[in-house]
Amino acid sequence: MDRIRQTGSGRLKQTSAGPAHDPGAIDVLNKGIALMEQPIGHDEIVRRGWNLLREDLTLPAAVLYEDRLQHNLEWMRQFTAAYGARLAPHGKTTMAPRLFAMQLAAGAWGITLATAHQTQVAYAHGVRRVLMANQLIGKQNMAIVAALLRDPEFEFYCLIDSAEQVDQLGSYFSHCGARLNVLLEVGVDGGRAGVRNREQLQSILDALGKWSHAIALCGVEVYEGVLDNEADIRAFLLHAVDVTKEIAAKKCFQRTPILLSGAGSAWYDVVAEAFSPRDFEHAVEVVLRPGCYLTHDVGAYRIAQDRILNSNSVARQMGAGLKPALQVWAYVQSVPEANKAIVGLGKRDAAFDSGLPVPALHFRPGSVTPHPVPANWMVTRMMDQHAYLQIAADDDIRPGDMIAFDIAHPCLTFDKWRVLALVNGAYDVIDLIQTFF
Amino acid sequence: MDRIRQTGSGRLKQTSAGPAHDPGAIDVLNKGIALMEQPIGHDEIVRRGWNLLREDLTLPAAVLYEDRLQHNLEWMRQFTAAYGARLAPHGKTTMAPRLFAMQLAAGAWGITLATAHQTQVAYAHGVRRVLMANQLIGKQNMAIVAALLRDPEFEFYCLIDSAEQVDQLGSYFSHCGARLNVLLEVGVDGGRAGVRNREQLQSILDALGKWSHAIALCGVEVYEGVLDNEADIRAFLLHAVDVTKEIAAKKCFQRTPILLSGAGSAWYDVVAEAFSPRDFEHAVEVVLRPGCYLTHDVGAYRIAQDRILNSNSVARQMGAGLKPALQVWAYVQSVPEANKAIVGLGKRDAAFDSGLPVPALHFRPGSVTPHPVPANWMVTRMMDQHAYLQIAADDDIRPGDMIAFDIAHPCLTFDKWRVLALVNGAYDVIDLIQTFF
Repeated sequence: MDRIRQTGSGRLKQTSAGPAHDPGAIDVLNKGIALMEQPIGHDEIVRRGWNLLREDLTLPAAVLYEDRLQHNLEWMRQFTAAYGARLAPHGKTTMAPRLFAMQLAAGAWGITLATAHQTQVAYAHGVRRVLMANQLIGKQNMAIVAALLRDPEFEFYCLIDSAEQVDQLGSYFSHCGARLNVLLEVGVDGGRAGVRNREQLQSILDALGKWSHAIALCGVEVYEGVLDNEADIRAFLLHAVDVTKEIAAKKCFQRTPILLSGAGSAWYDVVAEAFSPRDFEHAVEVVLRPGCYLTHDVGAYRIAQDRILNSNSVARQMGAGLKPALQVWAYVQSVPEANKAIVGLGKRDAAFDSGLPVPALHFRPGSVTPHPVPANWMVTRMMDQHAYLQIAADDDIRPGDMIAFDIAHPCLTFDKWRVLALVNGAYDVIDLIQTFF
Repeated sequence: MDRIRQTGSGRLKQTSAGPAHDPGAIDVLNKGIALMEQPIGHDEIVRRGWNLLREDLTLPAAVLYEDRLQHNLEWMRQFTAAYGARLAPHGKTTMAPRLFAMQLAAGAWGITLATAHQTQVAYAHGVRRVLMANQLIGKQNMAIVAALLRDPEFEFYCLIDSAEQVDQLGSYFSHCGARLNVLLEVGVDGGRAGVRNREQLQSILDALGKWSHAIALCGVEVYEGVLDNEADIRAFLLHAVDVTKEIAAKKCFQRTPILLSGAGSAWYDVVAEAFSPRDFEHAVEVVLRPGCYLTHDVGAYRIAQDRILNSNSVARQMGAGLKPALQVWAYVQSVPEANKAIVGLGKRDAAFDSGLPVPALHFRPGSVTPHPVPANWMVTRMMDQHAYLQIAADDDIRPGDMIAFDIAHPCLTFDKWRVLALVNGAYDVIDLIQTFF
């Protein structure tokens, strides 16, 4: 068996692949980092002494705040522990293996992912338990998973929701001699994937019967985030529990405890409540999958968090809720009109589909500390590389000023960056976080 | 001076930097490529014999069509030549150095870019003339440009639009002994950056007077795409011509011929007409900067192209217009309701801000050839990793089917991919195109 070595990024590399470069090194050709002559290893970063406020990074730059990440990690650890639930944070949000490692170190049971490619990335960086909250489809995607399953330490689950798909998986995995763990996705009319009715369910169970040597049904999965009000969500979750009991009564599950998984980043409290104290005859392991809690935001997830802090008794007792831990910093590049500044921050740099970025801090290079922006400042439009910032005529703002923007929708902000800067409370760069989208 | 070697990707690497990895090699951890054991060099790709229809790529995958790219390159070459204009395609659209190289090989004068980081990427891959159609702002961004300007073969222009910014540039570049070429950006009320009035213009000319050893004014630039009707655009372009004449009369330009540049991907015909036959006393070099022509789309740029083909006499004579050369292929992963299929294509894979992706081709693995999709198929919603595809109850579609989607807004599709597959007419993969966002 090949020896493996853990690199700076935590990426595991087979030494038999030859003396290739350190895959954890950060290439010089990334936006939002310092000007460098050569790729830099993670162990060198702190030594460089880069500081955001001394303009050591090229802007725009995506910045993660270490203290707020740690706060959010601890908050979610306590919350899920209070319900006796497992946490498998959705890794598609960040696709940053160093953040996966932080989540696992903070007690996460595994990492949730959306695709075979994402699973491959996580495995390459040491993740050994993945819930792929999606149907596994297509020859090469199956080949990726089959290759990873050769490692007996790798635990993997993916979703099924049709007999046709079960037959495709059964054919592939029986051919290569592997056994695939699957969860039945239960869906809802008007929603995304997942079985809608008893006929679909029965046809899947029949198909599974044909492929029991190649496919093991381990539990039930839902994504309640396709619904948008609590009553519908609670009804859907109860339905999923009923389906789980029905399948358990038929003795079709091949895992003990049975896995029961749900929860995006907006309704994980309701899922924790609905799935937690159940009168199952069989042991059940509840797995929650929020992804955005790690960096939080000032858009839909702040609204969701406000609801949770108001209505959930566990969250209420925990005091301070999640904190926005990701900002994008950019320069003012022009103030062409009395009420308008143009900022070098665009759709290439931050999400714009769930609310535009919100200006938070204003810093003039050479001054001591950033200040909160005036309450009247607001992003009114974004283009690919620019934002329009509405200001008042007398506001003190000029080209070269730095502005920190809070963001809405971390998933579509992370995927704009190959490297994000991790800073401490003094804005010193203490690490560079790579993504693998 | 360091020897340089051209790598597979065209990236120029100083050998003094040591025996690092081939920076042109494609890493295994990218979505939309084949399953690979090790990074692959460009010279190996054709030998692998990958074919899209044989499911040799993991889907979703972004696919570029060689024949259509060549058609579009030749179309734009002929169009700009007819006006005697230079072409500096906006490279921010693709950020793919191999496509920059195709554009330069097809006669482009240079590459337009939006940021210092993008300029650095282009330079590293051999581009030696860059028009940065943006203000250069911030210490590290200036440092990037100053480092590149040490190469006397590198020709670079960026924009100015305020005395404050001119002072910042003058201070930096005089300090490091370099001379920076700039273009004056002329803007319009309600638009983006750029001078709005005579007072702003005069203050900039005054500032330039202080820094003539460090900053050379070489021409005038506009971005007419902030306006949305032809009459306003024509008036704006005439104004820019007047400003150019006024500055020329004051003998403030330090380049012969004077550069006069405009044109995004929607109105390049109008800019070509308005800037072309001008009664300047001085020689003028007109530089057009469309970026999306290379892959075209089925959204805003198809609409723009239809207008051009109808109204522009040069385009009318050229016959077939631009062709959509970029598609994203994805698997059907579920057909949970009679009228709905769920496809593994999301906001992580294609632009959604200027129209959703449009299903174009349907292919069932094992069959002979893709067929056009039924006219009733339509994407109705996109999530991060999924699209809802509306179908009719009797349509023949099932999990594992492949669908090719045309896209709207290439810029925000390219930036979702680190590698795109270049295919020939038989869907053989003939290259992998890397991006550097």
